[in-house]
Amino acid sequence: MGTHNVAFLGLGAMGLPMALNLARKGFIVSGWNRSPGRGAALTEAGGRLAESLHNAVAEASCIVTMLSGPAAVAAVALGPDGFLTAAPKGAVWVECSTIGPEAVRKLAAAAEAAGVQFIDAPVLGSVGPATKGTLHFVAGGSADAVASARPVMLAMGDGITHFGPVGAGAGAKVISNMVTATLVSAVAEGLALGERLGLDREQVAAMLGEGPVASPIVKLKAPIMLNEQFAPAFQLKLMEKDLGLALAEAHRLGAALPTASGAHEAYAGARTAGMGELDFAAVSAFLRLMARGPLGRD
Amino acid sequence: MGTHNVAFLGLGAMGLPMALNLARKGFIVSGWNRSPGRGAALTEAGGRLAESLHNAVAEASCIVTMLSGPAAVAAVALGPDGFLTAAPKGAVWVECSTIGPEAVRKLAAAAEAAGVQFIDAPVLGSVGPATKGTLHFVAGGSADAVASARPVMLAMGDGITHFGPVGAGAGAKVISNMVTATLVSAVAEGLALGERLGLDREQVAAMLGEGPVASPIVKLKAPIMLNEQFAPAFQLKLMEKDLGLALAEAHRLGAALPTASGAHEAYAGARTAGMGELDFAAVSAFLRLMARGPLGRD
Amino acid sequence: MGTHNVAFLGLGAMGLPMALNLARKGFIVSGWNRSPGRGAALTEAGGRLAESLHNAVAEASCIVTMLSGPAAVAAVALGPDGFLTAAPKGAVWVECSTIGPEAVRKLAAAAEAAGVQFIDAPVLGSVGPATKGTLHFVAGGSADAVASARPVMLAMGDGITHFGPVGAGAGAKVISNMVTATLVSAVAEGLALGERLGLDREQVAAMLGEGPVASPIVKLKAPIMLNEQFAPAFQLKLMEKDLGLALAEAHRLGAALPTASGAHEAYAGARTAGMGELDFAAVSAFLRLMARGPLGRD
Amino acid sequence: MGTHNVAFLGLGAMGLPMALNLARKGFIVSGWNRSPGRGAALTEAGGRLAESLHNAVAEASCIVTMLSGPAAVAAVALGPDGFLTAAPKGAVWVECSTIGPEAVRKLAAAAEAAGVQFIDAPVLGSVGPATKGTLHFVAGGSADAVASARPVMLAMGDGITHFGPVGAGAGAKVISNMVTATLVSAVAEGLALGERLGLDREQVAAMLGEGPVASPIVKLKAPIMLNEQFAPAFQLKLMEKDLGLALAEAHRLGAALPTASGAHEAYAGARTAGMGELDFAAVSAFLRLMARGPLGRD
Repeated sequence: MGTHNVAFLGLGAMGLPMALNLARKGFIVSGWNRSPGRGAALTEAGGRLAESLHNAVAEASCIVTMLSGPAAVAAVALGPDGFLTAAPKGAVWVECSTIGPEAVRKLAAAAEAAGVQFIDAPVLGSVGPATKGTLHFVAGGSADAVASARPVMLAMGDGITHFGPVGAGAGAKVISNMVTATLVSAVAEGLALGERLGLDREQVAAMLGEGPVASPIVKLKAPIMLNEQFAPAFQLKLMEKDLGLALAEAHRLGAALPTASGAHEAYAGARTAGMGELDFAAVSAFLRLMARGPLGRD
Repeated sequence: MGTHNVAFLGLGAMGLPMALNLARKGFIVSGWNRSPGRGAALTEAGGRLAESLHNAVAEASCIVTMLSGPAAVAAVALGPDGFLTAAPKGAVWVECSTIGPEAVRKLAAAAEAAGVQFIDAPVLGSVGPATKGTLHFVAGGSADAVASARPVMLAMGDGITHFGPVGAGAGAKVISNMVTATLVSAVAEGLALGERLGLDREQVAAMLGEGPVASPIVKLKAPIMLNEQFAPAFQLKLMEKDLGLALAEAHRLGAALPTASGAHEAYAGARTAGMGELDFAAVSAFLRLMARGPLGRD
Repeated sequence: MGTHNVAFLGLGAMGLPMALNLARKGFIVSGWNRSPGRGAALTEAGGRLAESLHNAVAEASCIVTMLSGPAAVAAVALGPDGFLTAAPKGAVWVECSTIGPEAVRKLAAAAEAAGVQFIDAPVLGSVGPATKGTLHFVAGGSADAVASARPVMLAMGDGITHFGPVGAGAGAKVISNMVTATLVSAVAEGLALGERLGLDREQVAAMLGEGPVASPIVKLKAPIMLNEQFAPAFQLKLMEKDLGLALAEAHRLGAALPTASGAHEAYAGARTAGMGELDFAAVSAFLRLMARGPLGRD
Repeated sequence: MGTHNVAFLGLGAMGLPMALNLARKGFIVSGWNRSPGRGAALTEAGGRLAESLHNAVAEASCIVTMLSGPAAVAAVALGPDGFLTAAPKGAVWVECSTIGPEAVRKLAAAAEAAGVQFIDAPVLGSVGPATKGTLHFVAGGSADAVASARPVMLAMGDGITHFGPVGAGAGAKVISNMVTATLVSAVAEGLALGERLGLDREQVAAMLGEGPVASPIVKLKAPIMLNEQFAPAFQLKLMEKDLGLALAEAHRLGAALPTASGAHEAYAGARTAGMGELDFAAVSAFLRLMARGPLGRD
């Protein structure tokens, strides 16, 4: 296995701190980002910036992608300028974006055709854990490929669950986000109903933050719902997208998921009402307005 | 304020341990239960059993009710045989059942007409906390009435949140149960989707039990969903009822709650399919079957 | 029974043409409206305008109310200035607004206390049928009261269904509106999905307008959805209110209605996004935007 | 174009009367069915029964498939025994099953590879129109292929709408079924709520059958809901499948459809509760039970 030569594609809010952790822990890191100027910190940490995708992956034994969605991943991987045409045979591609099982299966087929091993390894945890190196990877792929990529993942996180073959990691990730999003909209509905019943929003938030549903996400997002400062840690429209990915898989398989469907409608409504770029906790602002009822009261 | 003489009406799975804690902590307790034979333990703990509602409350300065629903509470309180006709003027009635704000307002009006102070004080926590005396009371009523009942509540629990006037405690409780029920059905949907995607149910449960939604209720119910042993700690049909109470209040006020509505449909479907007497975690068995899809696969 | 002396309270978009039909068919009509200036046409048709509620009903054997909602009806009926204090004993009050069974029961109790017979008689049909005198009344109340009011209703409409005791007419009306609203949002979702699949919106509308769901409301509203001219025949927020009334009754009774709940979320979302004052067919504009998905596409 | 030599694959409840119409109108028809013994009527009408798929299509210029779902269509078309390996180059395949756009796209690609023209042409209308030859075809494919198949379709129906390229017909069909299913469950919810409000079910059905939602499907299914004789004209589980196909397409595209999602949950619940083999109007029996609420009332 040895020390990997890592190409890191996508130096965004998540990708940059992940790449920095790799560089600081001694991996040879070639970073690439669509918009330039994101990589000064990487150079300082001992990595280098590649001027092209082909250049970034030319020497890589491991390629990590951390991008915004299926279209962005396809854009860097496929086609004549995509990295797969330049990647060394036998390299392992660790796809960390949240793109859903269906997109994963297509990318894995393209990787196989290019002689590249593929694992889908999206992460649980956002910017904080990415910075601290405490992400948890939920992985899908062959046992060999996962083993090969293990040291790279453990330089960026502190846990790996291997869920099964290609697509299993993506499936696990959309499930995690689906349940998280549903809990957040449920809490938002609790606050909205409480307000209409004349209850104090802070008291309701405190009750939920200490009782049966007390959990990291409630402790993180309930205060944000109260102060309504929705600077995005994770954009509402991206959470809507992940809920949609989960439901697309469900309906492809003939499964009805009533609770998650209700949550999806809340996020989709909030995005339609103009809140898509805010943090996903802003679903509470939409639900609060919706709870005021048709005849208005303020 | 002094030490209360307490009438405790309803010695069921919750009521009996609550009454025992009162007796053990030195309160004079007159217990009453619809079906006799529940009270031996109370006598042993120093309380007494009353042969009638009127007899139970004749000397009481505080009356606690802990019953199955609005009809049961109305049956013990109202009418010529109801306790309100025999309760001393000025006594404080602590209504601990989960019956919803609308029923509470009707009972409070009857209490006021009988010269009895009323607080709605449903509890967070089930049989375990009731036994250990660690319930949390969410109370509605006048400041005076809540202050008067405080020592009684603190003999049965370790926390009180006073949410506002009569009805506020009932509102808080249905909100807590609504969010709890929604999280449980969301987790069940995550397990069901995971299974259809070929993921291991134990791995999915472990992921949810440690990540953003990790919370007491997930830790408690996820193992039960896995082993499908649904001996009722809290019956599914009662959780469906509480969700319905929350939605009834919401719709009375013109509020739409999409996520909770989805959860309600899951519990109502499970009850319709014959699972109402099981623990509410059995919603996972219904959702698992539903996720198999229309064309069957085993 | 004889010819009624009718007080008509509420000369809005529906009420005015209804009052005109009464006047033209020989009833003595005293009209009243909160904002003055609505009644010139009534005077021309042989009616008169009353300067106060008390004055309007002083001689009435039949009082018709046609107002915007429960608060408006309570405002004209109850309190010292409400018409009930001035209405002749034995008069019959025909309540035609859409206000839901719960509000109806409260009003009926107040009427009974004032010695006034009450029937709830909301109408099927909007401005067109009101003008042509082809409304259909769905009535609740005693057989005697309904019989007494029959000639008044038949001067404004061409059909009466007596559904049962007080509240039954209100129940029937909210059911009719609930199913109508649900069909309209379902058609809107069909158009929205079709557009995303690349289908021509006019072809989809034509298919739905001729197939299994072809019905008066589809034929009326599908063209409006296509041209997106949403001048209100019936405001979206009022349809949302009626759906909410139906769901409030359902949840009060412990019933889950998944399809209507989904429709309610669509209308509530559309109102929250600012479309409440438009015709309720505007739910299609909201659903069309929502169907564009989180990552935008134009 | 001329008279087609037609291979008709799938002689079920829909396929047999369609094939009979072709034979009676002078087309040369080779029928095939998985289970033998369905074809006596076809022979009497002048057609012939083929002993194998290859034999059925050997001389065909047009191949019609009318089967239960995507798996059944794939089974007759693909693989070494599938008809595509034996179909004459240039023949046109008219795929009439309801299988969804995604499955259609896969089949069309296989047809193209085999040199066979493909159109998806599912039908509006069930056994009655199939027998009378009054089906309406909603078609997707090239203009040439649709033109070539036109006389075949017009021998089995009386209308064709060409919605666009391959997949457009399948999309239109799932939209039609989605709206139909949603209207039927909405009517069922109206009946269920009415019953809980004490209204007469026949009166409610009559009101809905004459008012804004009066439509062929309501007139057909409302009486079946009243008498609860659910011999299947179209099985509930197949309607659930079609709703699921529509929602799968919607979620693949990021679209939320709240009303249709609610309807899907009703049908999926009914199937889970054991009603999948009944007519889809049986969703009313499920919703009626669900509306009884958690605490039972008869």
